[in-house]
Amino acid sequence: MSRFWSPVVQGLTPYVPGEQPKLQNLVKLNTNENPYGPSPAVLTAVRDAVGDSLRLYPDPNADALKDTLAEYHGVARNEIFVGNGSDEVLAFVFQALLQHEAPVLFPDVTYSFYPVYCGLYGVDFVKVPLSATMEIRPEDYRQPCGGIIFPNPNAPTGIGMPAATVEQLLIDHPDAVVVVDEAYIDFGGESAIPLTKRYPNLLVVQTLSKSRSLAGLRVGFAIGHPDLIEALDRVKNSFNSYPLDRLAQVGAIAAFRDEAYFQQTRQAIMASRDKLAAQLGELGFEVLPSQANFIFARHLQQDALKLAQGLRERAVIVRHFKQPRIDQYLRITVGTDAECATLVTALREILAAAPAA
Amino acid sequence: MSRFWSPVVQGLTPYVPGEQPKLQNLVKLNTNENPYGPSPAVLTAVRDAVGDSLRLYPDPNADALKDTLAEYHGVARNEIFVGNGSDEVLAFVFQALLQHEAPVLFPDVTYSFYPVYCGLYGVDFVKVPLSATMEIRPEDYRQPCGGIIFPNPNAPTGIGMPAATVEQLLIDHPDAVVVVDEAYIDFGGESAIPLTKRYPNLLVVQTLSKSRSLAGLRVGFAIGHPDLIEALDRVKNSFNSYPLDRLAQVGAIAAFRDEAYFQQTRQAIMASRDKLAAQLGELGFEVLPSQANFIFARHLQQDALKLAQGLRERAVIVRHFKQPRIDQYLRITVGTDAECATLVTALREILAAAPAA
Repeated sequence: MSRFWSPVVQGLTPYVPGEQPKLQNLVKLNTNENPYGPSPAVLTAVRDAVGDSLRLYPDPNADALKDTLAEYHGVARNEIFVGNGSDEVLAFVFQALLQHEAPVLFPDVTYSFYPVYCGLYGVDFVKVPLSATMEIRPEDYRQPCGGIIFPNPNAPTGIGMPAATVEQLLIDHPDAVVVVDEAYIDFGGESAIPLTKRYPNLLVVQTLSKSRSLAGLRVGFAIGHPDLIEALDRVKNSFNSYPLDRLAQVGAIAAFRDEAYFQQTRQAIMASRDKLAAQLGELGFEVLPSQANFIFARHLQQDALKLAQGLRERAVIVRHFKQPRIDQYLRITVGTDAECATLVTALREILAAAPAA
Repeated sequence: MSRFWSPVVQGLTPYVPGEQPKLQNLVKLNTNENPYGPSPAVLTAVRDAVGDSLRLYPDPNADALKDTLAEYHGVARNEIFVGNGSDEVLAFVFQALLQHEAPVLFPDVTYSFYPVYCGLYGVDFVKVPLSATMEIRPEDYRQPCGGIIFPNPNAPTGIGMPAATVEQLLIDHPDAVVVVDEAYIDFGGESAIPLTKRYPNLLVVQTLSKSRSLAGLRVGFAIGHPDLIEALDRVKNSFNSYPLDRLAQVGAIAAFRDEAYFQQTRQAIMASRDKLAAQLGELGFEVLPSQANFIFARHLQQDALKLAQGLRERAVIVRHFKQPRIDQYLRITVGTDAECATLVTALREILAAAPAA
């Protein structure tokens, strides 16, 4: 606390990201990164862009990247916003589109950055409980609101929502912006992007951090009606003209041009996920059905935090949330098959040594 | 305008950055980029970092970069904040440290992003006129305020302020944050960083976009008392955990480790600047004394906008501001000696063809 702080600072409870350990040789299954590196074509494109031109500002509007995304997703350039990771895109969304008199609605169990953005921008919110089976039910959202946001698949549950259910929310709330945060959509979910053509209140947010293996490059984007995109652009251009550096723009373009690599790696991750889910079931875990690149599971006998600690002693890091309803779950990123095998071996050891509950 | 926009969006007048033309073969003297590319050591370091690790999130706190800056500037890690270009750093400064009941003060002729930030965060401001010789005078700032911000050297005038004058402002305003935006400090100015040890209300902001030739990589930083840095961290961690990508962090570290290249390029630019200023004087310009990598000058007979248009027809781009007091000035980035010569030749042609005023 300091007399120099703006009033808003004093009330902030910042988001705490998953640990980025500086130790090597850890099996890092805690922040949902892709176990496969970026496409070789991305690495070549980025390396080729490292040169004299770094002295020049990047394109502030990232038009070449927007054109690539427009072609890929079958939309127009003015239906696309790009930002420095989907976290920055989401921050602009809260400030530009969700700050109204009525509260924003989001699930009680969801991405824990949402209430943090609300704190930063003075946005009221109401947490809507997931069902007993951890699902988002449109009927629970039938209440006055200034907007709705949720991840699809939801995080940290991994449970996906069919496009028809997204559409039900859009029909129920024609006067509110509905934001679908599709960070994990490429691992088996059904994107709502095609619905943006028919629903001017729909904004879809995606990231290159997960399925495109580029968490280290910080690129996210949103797709929606040009009016929604204009609001984001106005805020972005009042904040930072050049949020995406030259290398990030080049790398992102190359990522969308290597469809074969994208398909190959996401299929590999989905196959590993399904295999890991089955193994965890055999070890006594209840595993939620995942359409993401992580698994959300609780052991029916053992305490989740103790399991996470035991894994850490064995150099495997997973994520545990000290939150109501989910404090007995572990969120486990799907690694390579070898990393998953290391995890399963470690869990077997821990469970064998644990006293029966 | 759309019913979906947050109220703040409707009142925004976004910043318009200098043009980033997509044409090649232009002599681009409009956005104060460095005419020399980044240090070869930077290019090597960044290229070496392009690999599998881009699948992983960057260090959210950029500790290695902060340690490099701490050593370079003789401060502690917790006296440093880093962001995605100094524009992002400044945005956080307005939200975290300048949003108070009393208005922020800044010069009437200054970086035109400041009032834009005020619009975004609902910060009241008062523009304090520069003196007749375009200087910032501490006595003009002796009025109630919630903070003070100015560039040193000022932009677009290029006029520098001695550290003793900065100190006078700090003494005059012990209860307000004084932000010195030192984007151009390395071209002959006197940095206020040493004063941060004695004045807990001083924050100094710098960028790697100008003197470090890395506008394309987006890195800026602030140095000040840990209380001020904590406010910035709280806002940043409520906005985006990972604003600096892996390559930007690596490149920035390498830039501060190549002192010889830094000295050589900044000296070359200062020498070119002084030569160009003399040539412009011979062509009938009144040239403000510049401690920056640009020159702010007005021709005593010819209209500035017409000169800028004439230069553009000859493939030379400079910046003209349609603003009170300065609409007869041109802001000309100092290029290589060859680029400066092209500019001077073009101006000679234009002036030879122009009717006498």
